[in-house]
Amino acid sequence: MAQNLAKPVADLIAALSRLPGIGPKSASRLTFYLLREGDGLALALSDALRALHEGTVECERCFNIAEISPCPICADPARDQRMICVVEDPLDVLAVERTGAFRGVYHILHGALSPIDGVYPEKLRIAELVDRVRTTHPREVILATNPSLEGENTAAYIHQQLAMADVSVTRLARGLPVGGDLEYTDEVTLSRALEGRRAM
Amino acid sequence: MAQNLAKPVADLIAALSRLPGIGPKSASRLTFYLLREGDGLALALSDALRALHEGTVECERCFNIAEISPCPICADPARDQRMICVVEDPLDVLAVERTGAFRGVYHILHGALSPIDGVYPEKLRIAELVDRVRTTHPREVILATNPSLEGENTAAYIHQQLAMADVSVTRLARGLPVGGDLEYTDEVTLSRALEGRRAM
Repeated sequence: MAQNLAKPVADLIAALSRLPGIGPKSASRLTFYLLREGDGLALALSDALRALHEGTVECERCFNIAEISPCPICADPARDQRMICVVEDPLDVLAVERTGAFRGVYHILHGALSPIDGVYPEKLRIAELVDRVRTTHPREVILATNPSLEGENTAAYIHQQLAMADVSVTRLARGLPVGGDLEYTDEVTLSRALEGRRAM
Repeated sequence: MAQNLAKPVADLIAALSRLPGIGPKSASRLTFYLLREGDGLALALSDALRALHEGTVECERCFNIAEISPCPICADPARDQRMICVVEDPLDVLAVERTGAFRGVYHILHGALSPIDGVYPEKLRIAELVDRVRTTHPREVILATNPSLEGENTAAYIHQQLAMADVSVTRLARGLPVGGDLEYTDEVTLSRALEGRRAM
């Protein structure tokens, strides 16, 4: 593909192809789109990419991506430091924050266990969570990893690691999604919803 | 989405979302992938984006994207300057070059006519092609726009514009793709293949 392509064009195609979900064809299309659009978008993207790591740090307490450490949530005196919600990544923090139903703090694992992809416990912030629980003695640790195989395994592993700590470990409820339809609910979700049924 | 996100993260998600085919969800996924991977890939992409316009020019003759003008193909004395292959974009040049069957030069339109998307003749390098034909008197102009509605319309329009010029205007052959299967060939392609049948 590279022969007869100007080097800057070939270089950008190669760099874009390294992104997940972007193959050589999409990378070419994006590159020629950027060429056609003039240099505004290409330079805006270039600057944003450069600032991404230069302008962010991981919060020393919760490992969220923030501009300062501790992050605004950890530094907020109105948040309950004794309630820790454990999530896989920063986007999950946004999802929980949007509910407005949680006033505690977070712990971001930066992934979920997946030995087949080379993600072992030491690649995640699990040891840091165990340390944090030991030193700060929270009242409750809510395991809010994804309801996927990897998320479940990660939650089970963390539960085990926290067995000796004197802390209540909970998991988000499983059940019917609001606005869902019983008829079209998969059997695993439906059986979890039955198991978790509550008195009205 | 932006509240509680570090500004560099929100900025990159916004910039990536401006690319065609990348929505806010993919943009978030790409951003957090780049965060996780360390700064190597983000900086490589940033540099490649900056170099894209700084390091390239449009060839003054054929309008291909190149590092110098005239481009290596136009500057090559071994290429037949009296044979011009007209294509929609630089990737099409690569496709034709890969065949090794063409020793002439190119003319890149940078798109195809599509009034519904605001692409009128003056947005393409059509006037430049007409000028080029008038001044350089090529023997043949091969219209190699895509076999799509837009490509066909573009070819028809250019044919009309070149009507007064004393030049042979040809179009790539339509027919069965090599390795294809008659049974699964669409009827338009098959009828073109019948029309274009040749003595063995």
